Amino acid sequence: MIEHRRIQARLDALTKPPGSLGKLEDLAATLARIQGTLAVSAAPRRLVIFAADHGVVAEGVSAWPSEVTRLMLDNIARGGAASSVLAGTTGTELHLVDVGTIGGKIATTATTRTRKVAEGSRNLAREPALTPQQFEQAWSMGAAEADLAVEAGCVVLAAGEMGIGNTTSAACLTALMTGLPAADVVGRGAGADDATLARKIAVVDRAVQRAGGLFASDRIAAIASIAGWEIAAMAGFYARAAERRCTIVLDGFIATSSALIAESLQPETCRRMIAAHRSAEPGHTAALRQLGLVPYLDGWNMRLGEGTGALLLMPLLDCAAAMLTKMATLEDLGLGPS
Amino acid sequence: MIEHRRIQARLDALTKPPGSLGKLEDLAATLARIQGTLAVSAAPRRLVIFAADHGVVAEGVSAWPSEVTRLMLDNIARGGAASSVLAGTTGTELHLVDVGTIGGKIATTATTRTRKVAEGSRNLAREPALTPQQFEQAWSMGAAEADLAVEAGCVVLAAGEMGIGNTTSAACLTALMTGLPAADVVGRGAGADDATLARKIAVVDRAVQRAGGLFASDRIAAIASIAGWEIAAMAGFYARAAERRCTIVLDGFIATSSALIAESLQPETCRRMIAAHRSAEPGHTAALRQLGLVPYLDGWNMRLGEGTGALLLMPLLDCAAAMLTKMATLEDLGLGPS
Repeated sequence: MIEHRRIQARLDALTKPPGSLGKLEDLAATLARIQGTLAVSAAPRRLVIFAADHGVVAEGVSAWPSEVTRLMLDNIARGGAASSVLAGTTGTELHLVDVGTIGGKIATTATTRTRKVAEGSRNLAREPALTPQQFEQAWSMGAAEADLAVEAGCVVLAAGEMGIGNTTSAACLTALMTGLPAADVVGRGAGADDATLARKIAVVDRAVQRAGGLFASDRIAAIASIAGWEIAAMAGFYARAAERRCTIVLDGFIATSSALIAESLQPETCRRMIAAHRSAEPGHTAALRQLGLVPYLDGWNMRLGEGTGALLLMPLLDCAAAMLTKMATLEDLGLGPS
Repeated sequence: MIEHRRIQARLDALTKPPGSLGKLEDLAATLARIQGTLAVSAAPRRLVIFAADHGVVAEGVSAWPSEVTRLMLDNIARGGAASSVLAGTTGTELHLVDVGTIGGKIATTATTRTRKVAEGSRNLAREPALTPQQFEQAWSMGAAEADLAVEAGCVVLAAGEMGIGNTTSAACLTALMTGLPAADVVGRGAGADDATLARKIAVVDRAVQRAGGLFASDRIAAIASIAGWEIAAMAGFYARAAERRCTIVLDGFIATSSALIAESLQPETCRRMIAAHRSAEPGHTAALRQLGLVPYLDGWNMRLGEGTGALLLMPLLDCAAAMLTKMATLEDLGLGPS
């Protein structure tokens, strides 16, 4: 623990007018609060991308077929995806974990592995997407990834996802946790047209009604029924990352729906989170508000997933950390308070 | 020249839903337009900080005395300032040029030099800050710096400033060029209190009235009368950087007042500019609007100067360039248009 007063005093002692670096000072103060020290650090860091398929794609809620999940998994692993390119550019380790895609195992490398116990979730429009036991399995897969990252020395962690159909699950979770109607939290995901959007809203509405009835008596069963393998894994990842005192950079809509799960099952997890950006998906704002998080990159209108929003914030975290730890003080210049 | 259609086609061919990287795609498209190629690059790059003093400080318009300019110059050179730290973190060369501070020459190094022909501008509240001849001298100093940077291989350039009192000059220039009243463009700079703010508005109002009367008959004399050494140098820097086909990253309020000068004297200079952030200074929004530029980091509330806002955008330029040049295409994955 470090007192806010000490952080503010340090920021105000640096060679600049107080507050003149605006949000960069907020970011530095947040890092200091989370890390419990003025000697903050934004590296080493790792983005773990969790990939899985979703049975709900059978309802026609996505512009893309499930096969695209595996194609993109290969693309990420080969370095051609947005996440691969941005991870390289921002100096962030990228690990890729298959926690439930359809189509067999991916090649295991130092940064790519298969953890899945099933291929895809069930169709949440018709039955629970995951059983409570499957949810716990997915949660553990995510927690194990946080442990691996911490053991490799990472201090800043982010989770990303790849899973055709997963904005439907994220919308369900956001509606369930915020109490908002389906129409307010459903967006176009990776490019849904009007007819697809209408189907998606109807699917979310029904699934959330069913899950809502279960929530008071069996919270995990309710959440599992509308989650997905990668979404549950990310929740476990966040919870363990928080337990292990990491700084968590939160990506967009789907990542934030996982954060809602983590916060519900392990309160205060989000105290260690920094929200990177505000997604173009309408439900994201509601989910962030629920968690009390304010995103740093506002108006960037990103909606790709794969942790790309979190990656964009990484160099700005470096800047915030450098400001707090490397700048001279007014006193060094003989301008300090007398 | 590259057609917008070709840039958009490339962005849409990458392995992501079209438009899903939001502003990062805008940034990449802007880079491609400015650089006239899809093979965009955000490095090597250089920030040149121009430093000078302002006679108008005698009017009590600043919270700090002129001596601070030189102290901060030394601080920047020694690596303790916000600009030094952020330049190092973002991989940006930092050069520092004294174009008119009070207090003798600074030590010349590979990245630090003195170009001044006078120590400080005159008090713009009482007489022209610079003569037209001095303005041309300052402009040439800036242009020479752009040439040096280009000859050193830099493709992205930014200018920053250090000069106690220079928000008063920037407010005058913004009022003159946008036609807005002084009260709308004057802010608190590096920490002015209410009394200082009121003095500053009165000073700006009078100086702009005087300059405005001169504008139609002698534009350079009008601009020079309310400019400062570093502000005029930055204008020359921008104009030459544009001539030499560089990509220019625009910092905050003072830098943008220089951009207004450059655009007035060499139209289309701002076509090669990317606005980094929207400053907390109220005049900045008006100046950006006048230039038709939309800043990428909105709501960051920075008001430090020294090019710090431009530096924060640099890693995001790297991300935009990497996205456009390194991602796989949908066709590579067998998902291309049939």
